[in-house]
Amino acid sequence: MGSNVNLRYGLVGSMGKMGREIKDYFSTFGDKLVFETDRDYINESGRPDVIIDFSSPTALVSTIEYCKKYCAGLVIGTTGLNEEDFDKLKELSQSVPVVQSYNFAEGVNILKEILEMFGSYFDGWDGAIVEIHHNQKKDAPSGTAIMLKNSLGRELPISSLRIGGIFGEHTVIFSNAGEVVKISHTALSRRAFAIGVRKAALFAMQAEKGFNSYRDVLRNSGNH
Amino acid sequence: MGSNVNLRYGLVGSMGKMGREIKDYFSTFGDKLVFETDRDYINESGRPDVIIDFSSPTALVSTIEYCKKYCAGLVIGTTGLNEEDFDKLKELSQSVPVVQSYNFAEGVNILKEILEMFGSYFDGWDGAIVEIHHNQKKDAPSGTAIMLKNSLGRELPISSLRIGGIFGEHTVIFSNAGEVVKISHTALSRRAFAIGVRKAALFAMQAEKGFNSYRDVLRNSGNH
Amino acid sequence: MGSNVNLRYGLVGSMGKMGREIKDYFSTFGDKLVFETDRDYINESGRPDVIIDFSSPTALVSTIEYCKKYCAGLVIGTTGLNEEDFDKLKELSQSVPVVQSYNFAEGVNILKEILEMFGSYFDGWDGAIVEIHHNQKKDAPSGTAIMLKNSLGRELPISSLRIGGIFGEHTVIFSNAGEVVKISHTALSRRAFAIGVRKAALFAMQAEKGFNSYRDVLRNSGNH
Amino acid sequence: MGSNVNLRYGLVGSMGKMGREIKDYFSTFGDKLVFETDRDYINESGRPDVIIDFSSPTALVSTIEYCKKYCAGLVIGTTGLNEEDFDKLKELSQSVPVVQSYNFAEGVNILKEILEMFGSYFDGWDGAIVEIHHNQKKDAPSGTAIMLKNSLGRELPISSLRIGGIFGEHTVIFSNAGEVVKISHTALSRRAFAIGVRKAALFAMQAEKGFNSYRDVLRNSGNH
Repeated sequence: MGSNVNLRYGLVGSMGKMGREIKDYFSTFGDKLVFETDRDYINESGRPDVIIDFSSPTALVSTIEYCKKYCAGLVIGTTGLNEEDFDKLKELSQSVPVVQSYNFAEGVNILKEILEMFGSYFDGWDGAIVEIHHNQKKDAPSGTAIMLKNSLGRELPISSLRIGGIFGEHTVIFSNAGEVVKISHTALSRRAFAIGVRKAALFAMQAEKGFNSYRDVLRNSGNH
Repeated sequence: MGSNVNLRYGLVGSMGKMGREIKDYFSTFGDKLVFETDRDYINESGRPDVIIDFSSPTALVSTIEYCKKYCAGLVIGTTGLNEEDFDKLKELSQSVPVVQSYNFAEGVNILKEILEMFGSYFDGWDGAIVEIHHNQKKDAPSGTAIMLKNSLGRELPISSLRIGGIFGEHTVIFSNAGEVVKISHTALSRRAFAIGVRKAALFAMQAEKGFNSYRDVLRNSGNH
Repeated sequence: MGSNVNLRYGLVGSMGKMGREIKDYFSTFGDKLVFETDRDYINESGRPDVIIDFSSPTALVSTIEYCKKYCAGLVIGTTGLNEEDFDKLKELSQSVPVVQSYNFAEGVNILKEILEMFGSYFDGWDGAIVEIHHNQKKDAPSGTAIMLKNSLGRELPISSLRIGGIFGEHTVIFSNAGEVVKISHTALSRRAFAIGVRKAALFAMQAEKGFNSYRDVLRNSGNH
Repeated sequence: MGSNVNLRYGLVGSMGKMGREIKDYFSTFGDKLVFETDRDYINESGRPDVIIDFSSPTALVSTIEYCKKYCAGLVIGTTGLNEEDFDKLKELSQSVPVVQSYNFAEGVNILKEILEMFGSYFDGWDGAIVEIHHNQKKDAPSGTAIMLKNSLGRELPISSLRIGGIFGEHTVIFSNAGEVVKISHTALSRRAFAIGVRKAALFAMQAEKGFNSYRDVLRNSGNH
């Protein structure tokens, strides 16, 4: 399985930044966009195997209806979902595969797994996280930095730099008296997320019904 | 268990660079050196729980005799051991715990485990290793770079820089179209190895008889 | 002087990747594109103060004519110019300001100046250059790496990595027995060049007639 | 001139960490220690060309007397000198060459010069300094980070990490919307300072009387 398979996909929020990036990237594989919607705009030209939603929670009810209508899996990266929204997604996952994540950058998800699995090996070491983002980013520390810290299961100082146009860098540093280990992730552009979204869509196209995180996508793609 | 325990240890090759580093480091914990030897020099002042050998293969027979005499575990970092030497070590490990490794830097061993476990997650990514050492190091690529590549189980280009006084840096880089992940290890000084040797010695002091690699030390220390 | 000034500019090769990036970036300052051309397409809607050409040597004669027609300065980043082309540019520079460079990334030009000025301070140090680019880049080492080496005026090993989607990173490393100095430049995207092009255009708008490199732009902008 | 010249030197504070490092390093060049003192200990076995003092302000009066007695230049790295101490050094510099600095790491001094000279080129860029030191270092930000910021002549956020055994790293980061420039210095060990001290001593051996900073040493060594 992989990049040789073509997708027939639907896209909710197809005119937003992430929507356009997904279309750009998917088109390089010859995937077919057969259904798209953005606010009042709708264009249905075929039956999608998977629907991708990177819009807003207000679109959720409508997105779920489309998934049911087409028996299409769902890949959803919308932020700000509440408990009720998750209930709806879980209900949907009883009939089709759903992949939900707040961060589709594959590398970030790999780092998370590494820190969960190997964090305790660094128990006797000092640790710190440095994260650098462009000067338009308002929150600090970044959600990803907090997620990485939580994966590690211990407190670490986080240094946040907001500078220039740096898209997004996270570095976890460990040091003991004689060694330094650094594990870092750099997102080069929005493309970082589009790659993960496509892997999730391929996963959803073939998976059984059920509710999945990106970890499930990762474990599946790591096995082949 | 950990740094609160005191060791009573023996040291073969106590006057070499690594021997002196071990003595320096262990003394900061109040460990007692009760037996030491280097070429013709011998000083036996007590019964060691563990014997540490960072000398040469020629010392092996004698080292093994001392381990048997004192029922002491063995931590051995001697390079250039042949098959026959390993047979002797395995025979010894039927009566006492033996820890053998060519690299006692804990961080390097952690990287090795990470690459073994997560290497397949990077299957669709490009990869490379950059290793930098001081200008006195003659071999290239470094043994550690080769070991890391092998842990990953795929071919990677290795760039070797020999420059100034850099003690030892290894960086494994992965990149796809939108992301970069770097995992790096820097040894700051010989202290990097002494730390791992002491962990191995503490492990050997409490382990059952048997033949162990540093991985066993790591897994043991990661669990507490 | 700076970002508060608006440009009225012309653009040759306005539909290429670099042309579109320039339009995107310049529009964020409210600059007016009053003249553009790409292959057979021409749109003249006003008199430009500066004409920017990032197309090909075949456009040069026509570009020069437009500069003369409008008394407009020229910023030219076309690659592959030959001696005859440079003669034409120098002839033009007797009536208007011309800025010619093969690399408009300001940071790269700053690095070049630093190495020219301070290279001899590193005479007793070992040195190396590591440059990393995406896997579509065919030449190695990069032209920029060679330029940086030449700025330094000594031979250095250059390690070239071609990996994933990394847009362009150059690191010059120096090390003696006790220290390491690294000077690095990362281009995050094509935006890196658009920024330098706009600074060159602002410079050309105000400069006297004459032939200039990016160094002249840099020295001018560094003085305010 | 350079490493082929042998020094006949005196050393005040010869048994401190820096004193021992200087002796170790200088001995690799065949330099002769002809006079040394530490607290109550004195050993005069010859006439030094240069006296090196890395002890404490309380030794200053005695050190100056020895310089006068032997007509020896002075290289002084003592911290915590007050105005009166500087007056004494300046008085001494009317008869012999004096080199005074709070940081003899050559690379740090080069960075300082680079930032002084090229800082204004980064006026439109965002900037930050990240400095990382071992967990025993109590002050933050480091004196060197403050010095680098001052060399730049503008305010920059400084992130200070105290972690493991990292001897000392300083990174100055600049970024605009499309580029990142990093200039970093890593001290690998105390050797970093010994190298600069020897260059200063060679400088003092040949210089005219006068008061010098490390910048004078640098400019002199950069010209050959």
